Amino acid sequence: MVRVGDEVSNKQVIFRDYVIGSPKESDMYLTTGTIKLKVPENSNAVLVKNLYLSCDPVMHFFMRKTTGLSKSGYIFYTPGSVTSSRYGVSKVLDSGHPEFKAGDLVWGITGWEEYTLITKTETLIKIQHTDIPLSYYTGILGMAGMTAYAGFYEVGAPKKGEYVYVSAASGAVGQLIGQFAKLEGCYVVGSAGSKEKVDLLKNRLGFDEAFNYKEEHDLNAALKRYFPESIDVYFEHVGGKMLEAVLLNMRHHGRIAMCGMISQYNLDEPEGIKNLIQVLYKWIHIKGYTHRNYYHLYPKFLDLVLPYIREKKLVYVEDIVEGLESGPAALVGLFSGRNFGKQVVVVARE
Amino acid sequence: MVRVGDEVSNKQVIFRDYVIGSPKESDMYLTTGTIKLKVPENSNAVLVKNLYLSCDPVMHFFMRKTTGLSKSGYIFYTPGSVTSSRYGVSKVLDSGHPEFKAGDLVWGITGWEEYTLITKTETLIKIQHTDIPLSYYTGILGMAGMTAYAGFYEVGAPKKGEYVYVSAASGAVGQLIGQFAKLEGCYVVGSAGSKEKVDLLKNRLGFDEAFNYKEEHDLNAALKRYFPESIDVYFEHVGGKMLEAVLLNMRHHGRIAMCGMISQYNLDEPEGIKNLIQVLYKWIHIKGYTHRNYYHLYPKFLDLVLPYIREKKLVYVEDIVEGLESGPAALVGLFSGRNFGKQVVVVARE
Repeated sequence: MVRVGDEVSNKQVIFRDYVIGSPKESDMYLTTGTIKLKVPENSNAVLVKNLYLSCDPVMHFFMRKTTGLSKSGYIFYTPGSVTSSRYGVSKVLDSGHPEFKAGDLVWGITGWEEYTLITKTETLIKIQHTDIPLSYYTGILGMAGMTAYAGFYEVGAPKKGEYVYVSAASGAVGQLIGQFAKLEGCYVVGSAGSKEKVDLLKNRLGFDEAFNYKEEHDLNAALKRYFPESIDVYFEHVGGKMLEAVLLNMRHHGRIAMCGMISQYNLDEPEGIKNLIQVLYKWIHIKGYTHRNYYHLYPKFLDLVLPYIREKKLVYVEDIVEGLESGPAALVGLFSGRNFGKQVVVVARE
Repeated sequence: MVRVGDEVSNKQVIFRDYVIGSPKESDMYLTTGTIKLKVPENSNAVLVKNLYLSCDPVMHFFMRKTTGLSKSGYIFYTPGSVTSSRYGVSKVLDSGHPEFKAGDLVWGITGWEEYTLITKTETLIKIQHTDIPLSYYTGILGMAGMTAYAGFYEVGAPKKGEYVYVSAASGAVGQLIGQFAKLEGCYVVGSAGSKEKVDLLKNRLGFDEAFNYKEEHDLNAALKRYFPESIDVYFEHVGGKMLEAVLLNMRHHGRIAMCGMISQYNLDEPEGIKNLIQVLYKWIHIKGYTHRNYYHLYPKFLDLVLPYIREKKLVYVEDIVEGLESGPAALVGLFSGRNFGKQVVVVARE
């Protein structure tokens, strides 16, 4: 049992250098440093013990040498520094911040390490409901949940009876969007990259239909088969060829809620979308969005999903790996679709 | 002077056959038929004498052999039939329709010919204000005006002080959007394809800045020069490389109102847009639209623009050619940017 003021060893996942192409395990390495478990005098930082860390496709974005995006407030990784998580669940050990005290559980941006001194506390949210598995705050009750909620209710906003398509549908966000769609009376089809994922979508998550995109040599034909009446709302997590096929199958006045393009992140040269003119022909509405623009809705979101989770009307599939040392492989696995549901790394269970 | 019931000769521009690539003059030919100037018994058609015909880029769209778009209600041209105008100004000679009577002036879809029996009367609107040049109902008070109005006020909706970019800015729609932007206190830059057009934008239409895109080998650099603070709202009439450059220069939460892609219509294989991921990074909003979805706003639109036209706060530049026989060349010229302002063909002046 550690105590405030102790100097302890701190296992860390270090980001080695900027990534070109797909991230590899060797882009990160493990090291062990030390940390004093105390917030410096006159600081409003928070010192936490990390419990659960989220693996998210967006982390690849922060690993690239990218300039010109500073206006958006993104924090890119620095080579030689600890990898940061978007997001993690942590326990406060010491706090100089009036809103957090020792013993509090929080979720927000933290480090891929055992203990983190969090100086940028803006993203920290105190966890109020602990009857729910704590790991859920890396997913359904965290960034993925907020992304799905904002995407479904604020951006795509499908109405009862509308035809909804979700790509990467068994992923952290997709599985929730599909379930929201069913709860709201939509017809929903999802695509994923393996038979097991397709079974998950149809049998556990309640999608009306699902297909394995890797087995479809003609995505346009596949979408025509699943959407003979075309698509009202598409939730875009993939990009590239999938987006082209979707554009051909959208309805007039269709909406595309865009929060990811995982097929494109690792390409040196992204695929060109050649039929964007469909947006013109069909008066399509495309909107890029991020959960970050909707945090003011977090309480409303909790009011909606907590009862659903407790009543088991909403299920959440996690792929949990144990130990910080499993982190790099788990993160890299996202880009080949190795994960089965939301990818979580357990650093410690309490 | 012709009379109702006369059988008269009727010069016509016939659409020869489906167009592949750019339209050519030879895709149309002139012929002279005859027409009886009388609406058939028990018909609610309208027989009109055509006065002014509009040349619009969208006509190329109707010349292509395109299937699968019938749901949108478009009427494609039929080889061997008269070319139809979107739109024209005509004088009613005879009418079986309760809303129109002989002597009325109307605008709507008519034929590229001297006289037309209009059976699909849904698009006809009676002209109430004749103190304005009648040709304006092919443009500023017709489809182009409604497109610009809907695009500016309903889709892009730039606010005072925002940075607005308009491509094809001296065209039928662009010149109006730029002027609306100035009337609403925006900063507006336009691009066009010749020095004369750039001068027009800056000196007569009141754009803050304008440039000749043909002289810019790096469109991204050009936009960075004209928009050091990036673009809030882009009015898209061009597509392709221009759209790619714009995406790099959009602000977060920027909006793109898309009503044309003239650079792409004539390509066998459209250019791919490789940086659509910017929509994701910057939470951009893209909306395809058509004037057709906003016709209920036509009275509101007239209330806004008629006083502006009368007070000369809004100017409209037309490129008027005389005679039906000049029509094919005028239409084809749109795709090389030969026109200077809104392209109109005069069939008869009254």
